[in-house]
Amino acid sequence: MVDAHAARRERLRQHCSASGADAALITRPANVRYLTGCAPCGASLLLTRDRALLALPDDLPPDDSGEHLVPDDPELSLVPVPAERDTALAVAEDAARLRVRDLAVEEHDLTVSRHRAVAGLAKGVNLLDLARAVERQRVVKDEHEIADLRIAAEIADQALGELLESILVGRTERHLAMELERRMIDHGADRAAFPVSVGTGSHSGQEAHLPTDRRVEEGDFLTVVLGAQYRGYRISTARTFVIGAAPAPWQVELHRLVFRAQRAGREALGPGVPEHAPDLAAREILRTGGHVGSTAHPLGHGIGLEIREAPRLGPSDMGKLDNRVPVTVGPGVHIPGKGGVRIEDTLVVRPLEEGGPELLTITTKELLAL
Amino acid sequence: MVDAHAARRERLRQHCSASGADAALITRPANVRYLTGCAPCGASLLLTRDRALLALPDDLPPDDSGEHLVPDDPELSLVPVPAERDTALAVAEDAARLRVRDLAVEEHDLTVSRHRAVAGLAKGVNLLDLARAVERQRVVKDEHEIADLRIAAEIADQALGELLESILVGRTERHLAMELERRMIDHGADRAAFPVSVGTGSHSGQEAHLPTDRRVEEGDFLTVVLGAQYRGYRISTARTFVIGAAPAPWQVELHRLVFRAQRAGREALGPGVPEHAPDLAAREILRTGGHVGSTAHPLGHGIGLEIREAPRLGPSDMGKLDNRVPVTVGPGVHIPGKGGVRIEDTLVVRPLEEGGPELLTITTKELLAL
Repeated sequence: MVDAHAARRERLRQHCSASGADAALITRPANVRYLTGCAPCGASLLLTRDRALLALPDDLPPDDSGEHLVPDDPELSLVPVPAERDTALAVAEDAARLRVRDLAVEEHDLTVSRHRAVAGLAKGVNLLDLARAVERQRVVKDEHEIADLRIAAEIADQALGELLESILVGRTERHLAMELERRMIDHGADRAAFPVSVGTGSHSGQEAHLPTDRRVEEGDFLTVVLGAQYRGYRISTARTFVIGAAPAPWQVELHRLVFRAQRAGREALGPGVPEHAPDLAAREILRTGGHVGSTAHPLGHGIGLEIREAPRLGPSDMGKLDNRVPVTVGPGVHIPGKGGVRIEDTLVVRPLEEGGPELLTITTKELLAL
Repeated sequence: MVDAHAARRERLRQHCSASGADAALITRPANVRYLTGCAPCGASLLLTRDRALLALPDDLPPDDSGEHLVPDDPELSLVPVPAERDTALAVAEDAARLRVRDLAVEEHDLTVSRHRAVAGLAKGVNLLDLARAVERQRVVKDEHEIADLRIAAEIADQALGELLESILVGRTERHLAMELERRMIDHGADRAAFPVSVGTGSHSGQEAHLPTDRRVEEGDFLTVVLGAQYRGYRISTARTFVIGAAPAPWQVELHRLVFRAQRAGREALGPGVPEHAPDLAAREILRTGGHVGSTAHPLGHGIGLEIREAPRLGPSDMGKLDNRVPVTVGPGVHIPGKGGVRIEDTLVVRPLEEGGPELLTITTKELLAL
């Protein structure tokens, strides 16, 4: 992995010199991690033509969790910075000391105040905008990254599978969400990739329902949206089940519709396919089923070190998908006051010769009656 | 509370006109909540001389948790914004439409890119820096806010008290942290105010240890750092216990030292007292006990809608404490490879006539042998 990080930094160096910068200041945590393997909050990376200075808070606990490990990377010079101080400002001074002429910074990450402070300390240095160069580099994953995503997906599937074997009626959304987070950690997740969402009855089918004290009842739809983070890599998945032996006809029908829409979205994935294609495919099926409302959101998005990253799979996204891009595909229908269905997977775009999209989240999407 | 929010907005209006701005754009979530009582992520507030436009994502779940409720405030005009769009940009256009001349924005919150986008849409509007005007307004709490902090503290105390009655030996730091978060939610917390930290053995005594799979063993120090959030208001507390009947002499001694330092810090709190006084009082006691290392951090900080807010109680902080300012007081000593002790409370600064500092986190600070 150390080589992988070095190679990523080399690509960024090439991008910088091509765009007239002789150094880059990386402050966005996911980007620092991508380029160094290092994830303590508050770390900053100064990348010059021949050096890589990683500024870290000097009070990192001696035995920190895997998440925050500082890699043993010979090319990285570690710069300890007093805990109270902004590491970006420390390396800004180094940039001046190292006679950097044009420094590309992440203007989408630095606040106006921090940017001003960096400019003030980087004496004689001209600040440019690196924009989302590192985010673009992150879109296509290597097989190491995909291996971590696979493990994150296994962890979420295990936690969900165990929950389905337990008694659900009478338990609150908050309890179920907590239990899923605990189980993911038991199975080796760094943490939940985002707060688990559990929605029952009229709460079901929403994308980001905040769990409440509502208890699971017979006849409810139960929607679970969960994701695990493993070595920094995150996946997201959603399933909707019905509680009790006999789902109502409208439940069976609605679930079948969302299931078909989600499958159409998955099947539309492929290298060279327009980013809007999966969304339009899924949207069309929901429309024929008479539902549109709750699909204002894009069908999915890229996923990796951040839960939402490029590309976006919305109806107006015009780019083309690449090979080895992990994305979510998750349509949903929510009927206010009644409930609804969400089904989401994380998949990796693969060419047909390799079997097409690789499904990472393998929990069944059938309508289970629990 | 609606009146309180209106009064807060009026104070901000006065600050703005005094500093030559005829409107303010509030984007920092805690500040939006302070001024409106409204907390959906992504909300922005445009405050002009005679209007208050609250821009919200248009896809808020119909039955959202109390945390995100939109208050029924006659003075607020709600502006629904498509979920995919930045609400700050929507109100920037409104600012131009409303003929705002000088708009104060939160440069410590807006990224350079967002600031540029706001400037581009607020045609003919001159952007100023509001700086931390709202944060300064938030320092002194009213009794409604303190009442919420009291409840948050009760919740954390209850969760901790229940944990102490359970068997701890053999359980992992991660499990104990999860259980504390679950119990706080059971007792009515919106959520944990921050990820609970549980450190045992050599992990004990650290400020922000990330829970690991290490299991609690006989003879361990056990440090728990936890906080609850109630109606948006957060508190923080830390306690250190020893596992097993017979603490070692070094444990008794170290705990007594940190206990005395923490008490000295608490007793130094008062209206008109320099912000550095509590830190110096605690630091002096640790020094006489031969410990300095792990007190590089300030002794404490203000706390409220954010877990860390003004004032900071560090050795170099020169301001004076005010009445009704909630702060944390939490010294700690960590001996690498061996462990340590942290003891932290959240208190409200009160004058002696009112009985001095009001302790919110009342769990015993004695060295319990569990």
